[in-house]
Amino acid sequence: MTPLDDQLFEAASPVMVLVRPQMGENIGAAARARLNFSCARMRLVAPRDGWPNPKAAAMASGAYPVLDRAGLFEDVAGATADCDYVYATTARGRGLTKPVLTPERAMQEARAMLAAGKRVAVLVGPERAGLENEDVARANAIITVPVNPAFYSLNLAQCVLLVAYEFTRQGIETPPDIMAMAGTDFATGIERTKLGDHFEERLEEAQFFYPADKAEHMRLNLRNMWSRLALTRADVQTLHGMLRQLARAGRRRDE
Amino acid sequence: MTPLDDQLFEAASPVMVLVRPQMGENIGAAARARLNFSCARMRLVAPRDGWPNPKAAAMASGAYPVLDRAGLFEDVAGATADCDYVYATTARGRGLTKPVLTPERAMQEARAMLAAGKRVAVLVGPERAGLENEDVARANAIITVPVNPAFYSLNLAQCVLLVAYEFTRQGIETPPDIMAMAGTDFATGIERTKLGDHFEERLEEAQFFYPADKAEHMRLNLRNMWSRLALTRADVQTLHGMLRQLARAGRRRDE
Repeated sequence: MTPLDDQLFEAASPVMVLVRPQMGENIGAAARARLNFSCARMRLVAPRDGWPNPKAAAMASGAYPVLDRAGLFEDVAGATADCDYVYATTARGRGLTKPVLTPERAMQEARAMLAAGKRVAVLVGPERAGLENEDVARANAIITVPVNPAFYSLNLAQCVLLVAYEFTRQGIETPPDIMAMAGTDFATGIERTKLGDHFEERLEEAQFFYPADKAEHMRLNLRNMWSRLALTRADVQTLHGMLRQLARAGRRRDE
Repeated sequence: MTPLDDQLFEAASPVMVLVRPQMGENIGAAARARLNFSCARMRLVAPRDGWPNPKAAAMASGAYPVLDRAGLFEDVAGATADCDYVYATTARGRGLTKPVLTPERAMQEARAMLAAGKRVAVLVGPERAGLENEDVARANAIITVPVNPAFYSLNLAQCVLLVAYEFTRQGIETPPDIMAMAGTDFATGIERTKLGDHFEERLEEAQFFYPADKAEHMRLNLRNMWSRLALTRADVQTLHGMLRQLARAGRRRDE
């Protein structure tokens, strides 16, 4: 185990419990989906083809730490014995009186509980039939992904992926658009002004600002455009260069 | 086409553009992922193995309307010619100065644009290499899924799934937990009161409220519990029945 792996397992995230999974490939795909979103803890309840499973390892490719540290349990009671709160994922109504939450709402709750030091588990059922009523009855609440009621065919790994995505999405403190903006080398005010001056000068020569009573408004619009476009320093250099070249070409034609 | 299909295609949703997809299976899986979240519009740019593709149809299973109506285009320019705003999904930084958004933020924008009658497209690249810089340069903004930077292995259909999930998640007006609560047949105040009375009566007989100076507080806690548990009418009937049976058993022992 590398220090990176240790870090992953120390970070609080819900425990994903795969209940009686059938195909090793799906266990591997679930491990990958978990690791994609830095959720490392996984438990297996009575996998059909035994454990370890070489097909799971093959499909997991780089996600080996998730598989290597996955706990193996005989039943749901054992796999959730140390958990304070348990969610069951199921698409179908069960006739069981139990809160039914979206992944979004459930992961909000889970984040709050994890922050308070509690252990949270999410049960996902086997490929074909999903969780049995007996499994669902052991959970505190149900997670239902808001799929198209006329077409729901989420597979095991997709369900795991969406829950892990929701958990991680809610934890992003600085969205990437803000970070990208912070890292951009925008042109300064004086650079934008000089660019505007340069364009105005050349456009004046080219008799662009016509008719005279509209000229002031055209100039204002142009100034506004240079600001609105959020130009970088490199953009400004490119635009200066374009303008110089166009002027040179014009002069050559005049000669 | 059924009326249900028509409804799907009339509802505003972003157009998903699969750019040079390689495996038919992935095109089919993408169609399913889209239909899971009621996003029907899909376009294909130069699929490697031609079109239609029987492997796509086999994998799509019930999602045939998405495939049947998928538009086929020679290049990205053609596939986005009628679109007002285009997002490119890519995991890697591109050195292109362009807004980089989470799926969450991008789908917020897309919802606002669709509501204003605009057409929005999302480009997803081929399996191995993803979109080329030339494709990304045609887009207005970039979507990057906030994956674990040390482990990102989202496949084509998973990427399509997450974008469709985000779009649909944001459109849910009444979360299922609220709906489930609204549909629950909770016990009324008088039923809870009668249940409390029944328990107090039997517990009084059993000399549960002891010592005397704590009795009032114990009664209050019990009343509070019956309300806090949000019992249904069926729960209340069960609890009455349990209590009657326990009393009967007690009397039999006394005889």
